[in-house]
Amino acid sequence: MTTMNVGFVLFPNLTQLDFTGPLQVLARLPGAEIHIAAKSTAPVPTDCPLALVPTTRFADCPPLDLICVPGGLGVAEAVGDAETVDFIRTQGERARWVTSVCTGAFLLGAAGLLDGRRATTHWGYTGLLPLVGATHEAGRVVHDGNVTTAGGVTSGIDFALRLVAEIAGEEVAQSIQLTIEYDPAPPYQSGHPSQAPDAVMAKVGPNFEASSARMREALAAA
Amino acid sequence: MTTMNVGFVLFPNLTQLDFTGPLQVLARLPGAEIHIAAKSTAPVPTDCPLALVPTTRFADCPPLDLICVPGGLGVAEAVGDAETVDFIRTQGERARWVTSVCTGAFLLGAAGLLDGRRATTHWGYTGLLPLVGATHEAGRVVHDGNVTTAGGVTSGIDFALRLVAEIAGEEVAQSIQLTIEYDPAPPYQSGHPSQAPDAVMAKVGPNFEASSARMREALAAA
Repeated sequence: MTTMNVGFVLFPNLTQLDFTGPLQVLARLPGAEIHIAAKSTAPVPTDCPLALVPTTRFADCPPLDLICVPGGLGVAEAVGDAETVDFIRTQGERARWVTSVCTGAFLLGAAGLLDGRRATTHWGYTGLLPLVGATHEAGRVVHDGNVTTAGGVTSGIDFALRLVAEIAGEEVAQSIQLTIEYDPAPPYQSGHPSQAPDAVMAKVGPNFEASSARMREALAAA
Repeated sequence: MTTMNVGFVLFPNLTQLDFTGPLQVLARLPGAEIHIAAKSTAPVPTDCPLALVPTTRFADCPPLDLICVPGGLGVAEAVGDAETVDFIRTQGERARWVTSVCTGAFLLGAAGLLDGRRATTHWGYTGLLPLVGATHEAGRVVHDGNVTTAGGVTSGIDFALRLVAEIAGEEVAQSIQLTIEYDPAPPYQSGHPSQAPDAVMAKVGPNFEASSARMREALAAA
């Protein structure tokens, strides 16, 4: 079996589930060697009161076959961080699979990797995709060539299972799905603006207007 | 708003998504103060190449209103660890909400907290629930009094949203669901033995026979 280098990019204030969901799936990809890369190997703070320990510095990370960039409010700062964006660009230009979850798409975009691509991101930010040269395509997971982008947060689990199916075949993906008992039963139909109750949308929507405006400014400055 | 102490129990070789899924949801519970407790504050290794940084030692953790115990292969060792089991027992006896995800149920059980309860756990281990005095009830999330147990790994997301609805109301749970874009679209129907293809079950099932046998021995010795 060929070893495949699978790398995740960490940066301060990422949304931890954007990363930990796909990690749980991709860690079971046969032959995968997982690299969790950050500027240093110091624990990285996330959007939750949880810090994550990287396995490698960017500088020491081997060439990746698959790069996955999670999102989160920290993206607005990370898109202006040359070391982080350079790492994503250098790795992404030679990787076989270039991927993001949630607003990680804007880090791919800041690295020039979404130019001319169809892509998606968290529903609150899809309108900003043209700022990085991409066209929004509706879908929880969007493939365009070797670039795969996923929607917000929990979409990373669906994304990773689809990627495993593409790389290692349907039966491997199904085996992982069974192992992690992924038979979801959301208590409500409220996971997307297309189905959320109006009162919920009225409450949540404004949060994303503010953070979307911050992301717009960050992308303009980057 | 009242502060509510929400605590997660970490131990070596836990399944990280058992914890990180519910964490993403419960961190947004209004008034929640999150405590990530372990024997020491050293990073805790997980089933993936990722170490997690606790926020508190067991010894320093305040009384919890809600305790959540994740699972993983490490449970077989943790059920024999007096300090871990004592922490769960002491906290669980006075907590308002006593909960587990996946095989975390056996840690609740080793602490005497499942005696006479209806409960669930990962599908590969449901047959062992009587060893800790519990009766298996089919269901992705099972409530019995103040004890809530969830099935394998990804069920922790459904579990946490249900718990938020119970604690803070339906609209708060729906808002969190929308924020984390939890509109799941599994690529296959393979998330539970009741629906997985026979060939997949034949491949995955034996893994759980071995780990279930190890858990049985660990519970007998504990």
